[in-house]
Amino acid sequence: MTGIVDVAARAGVSVATVSRALRGLPGVSDATREQVRKIAAELGYVASPSAAALPTGRTGAVGVVSPVARGGWYFTAVSQGAQEVLNAQGYDVLRYDVSDVATNRYRVFDMQLLRKRVDALLITSLPLTPDEVEALHAMNRPVMVVGPIVPGLPSVRIDDVAVGRIATEHLIKLGHRDIAFAGGDPDDRLGFPVSPDRRIGYVEALREVGVEPDPDLTVPAVFTVEAGVAAFAELWERRVKPTAVFAVSDEVAMGVMYEANRRGLRIPEDLSVVGVDDHDMSWLFGLTTVAQDVREEGRIAARTLLEQLTAGINGETSVTTVETKLVVRSSTAPPA
Amino acid sequence: MTGIVDVAARAGVSVATVSRALRGLPGVSDATREQVRKIAAELGYVASPSAAALPTGRTGAVGVVSPVARGGWYFTAVSQGAQEVLNAQGYDVLRYDVSDVATNRYRVFDMQLLRKRVDALLITSLPLTPDEVEALHAMNRPVMVVGPIVPGLPSVRIDDVAVGRIATEHLIKLGHRDIAFAGGDPDDRLGFPVSPDRRIGYVEALREVGVEPDPDLTVPAVFTVEAGVAAFAELWERRVKPTAVFAVSDEVAMGVMYEANRRGLRIPEDLSVVGVDDHDMSWLFGLTTVAQDVREEGRIAARTLLEQLTAGINGETSVTTVETKLVVRSSTAPPA
Repeated sequence: MTGIVDVAARAGVSVATVSRALRGLPGVSDATREQVRKIAAELGYVASPSAAALPTGRTGAVGVVSPVARGGWYFTAVSQGAQEVLNAQGYDVLRYDVSDVATNRYRVFDMQLLRKRVDALLITSLPLTPDEVEALHAMNRPVMVVGPIVPGLPSVRIDDVAVGRIATEHLIKLGHRDIAFAGGDPDDRLGFPVSPDRRIGYVEALREVGVEPDPDLTVPAVFTVEAGVAAFAELWERRVKPTAVFAVSDEVAMGVMYEANRRGLRIPEDLSVVGVDDHDMSWLFGLTTVAQDVREEGRIAARTLLEQLTAGINGETSVTTVETKLVVRSSTAPPA
Repeated sequence: MTGIVDVAARAGVSVATVSRALRGLPGVSDATREQVRKIAAELGYVASPSAAALPTGRTGAVGVVSPVARGGWYFTAVSQGAQEVLNAQGYDVLRYDVSDVATNRYRVFDMQLLRKRVDALLITSLPLTPDEVEALHAMNRPVMVVGPIVPGLPSVRIDDVAVGRIATEHLIKLGHRDIAFAGGDPDDRLGFPVSPDRRIGYVEALREVGVEPDPDLTVPAVFTVEAGVAAFAELWERRVKPTAVFAVSDEVAMGVMYEANRRGLRIPEDLSVVGVDDHDMSWLFGLTTVAQDVREEGRIAARTLLEQLTAGINGETSVTTVETKLVVRSSTAPPA
């Protein structure tokens, strides 16, 4: 049977170079990589992807954990960014779905199983129980969280309080004072901070111009279009009518716009709407939004994991905060 | 070290039952599964996910191949449906990205590598070269294609010619005769049949009412919103102005609507638009569409793979055709 040594000898390079070339890792020129692949194919050499064949007992795979079935654009975009980087570096990506708490969370957060499967783990915006965080530590593998800050774990995130301020200040500058907030999950028992933090920014911005936020102008909405529809329907039945809505995400904003239109309101003449994300389709709706580069957040997290796989886990729980920026489109204007 | 035999003895069940219970496979009651898990946890028994520990040399993983980075809703929805079924049956899902032909296609379609990684392979709507089809056969693992019929491979698909007829007949019944078709990729060298088949249905439906389709009313568009924008811009500069557009997908239709609006056309008063898919967001645009249940197609493909993993590859290249249905919303109306 042909071994890696034979390929290295024929190609006139080191065994390490053959390994790097065939696994798509950097540090090998394109010409050498092509040459090594050709010789490996000629000799019928198959690099084994099993842990034993990889240096330091690795699997060559990274797990990406997200609530897949919930379908949100954000999770898909994070995963795409991460997969791009990981595949390019020769890593397989294992996707774990944790939408179905009963069956899948058991599997995913069974770290003893997981450590045999993956070299590192990327967790997309997901509330974690203290037990799960502890289990992640016990796994003793690089872990990154994209989304909220999880105490004890490194993460890539945006400043959600700042996001709330940016969105609200934009509406205030246009002259709005009766600004609603659509976001937050009253059923959340894990203290997922994204919506509450964005609302803190909203409250701070209003107080700065001497407006005490009316509790009637906050309506709950999880991160979906359907939640946005329901939120605006509820809001519009209340005592106070806003002239603008700050929605916790673009998907919520799209739902708000849909329901406002259905009730005969024109946007932005009768109602201004601002969201968060810059979802791939937000430009289609002319939606003003606080943009984040979600795919880039996935890429940064993946690159950080790869660095730790090379250099070892450093125990740091660093938080990388990615910039956001206001993108003004046609869904916001001064109040009538 | 605790073995599976110890767990079986303590639980009073067979080794096979312990294996099935811990891998989430069917044929075990919830009570037994819970009991086995508890005992396994107590005894510190860890089921190895390596091929050696699985019956018949399996990996416990299924690969899903799609052009991830292209981001289309269709690929995401197929993968979600498949992952739902596979995770529920205890299989891990490996996602392979083939957007980047140069680096990743080499890796993915290197079947000698792949057969060590996955027990079966699901390929989402992707043009395949004859070499790739041959390599898939040589892998000797269950393979399913979701999307086009690929000669020699089993697939789950919709009848694309019928889709074209349904969309076009809807417009004809409303009174339209100057109907444009936005779809097709002039650069496709692999003969990907989806757009051409939908156009055949369009041509057939028009000829049936004595209308010879004007070549000027066909504009190319790949399956993206941006392509829809460009397609309508090109179409509207031509000699003949349509009163309706049949777009090859909902994403293309959304782009057509956006660009038509931007040019001052009202939908449906000045232009009717019909798409294909029933994309998660199509209702937001009031888009009339020929709906398919894409997630269900992913589920069917995954279940078929699991059957073959149980019963063995039967060599059948069966084609499962899933129903489509017209969903009429506000983007279509009689011509002015």
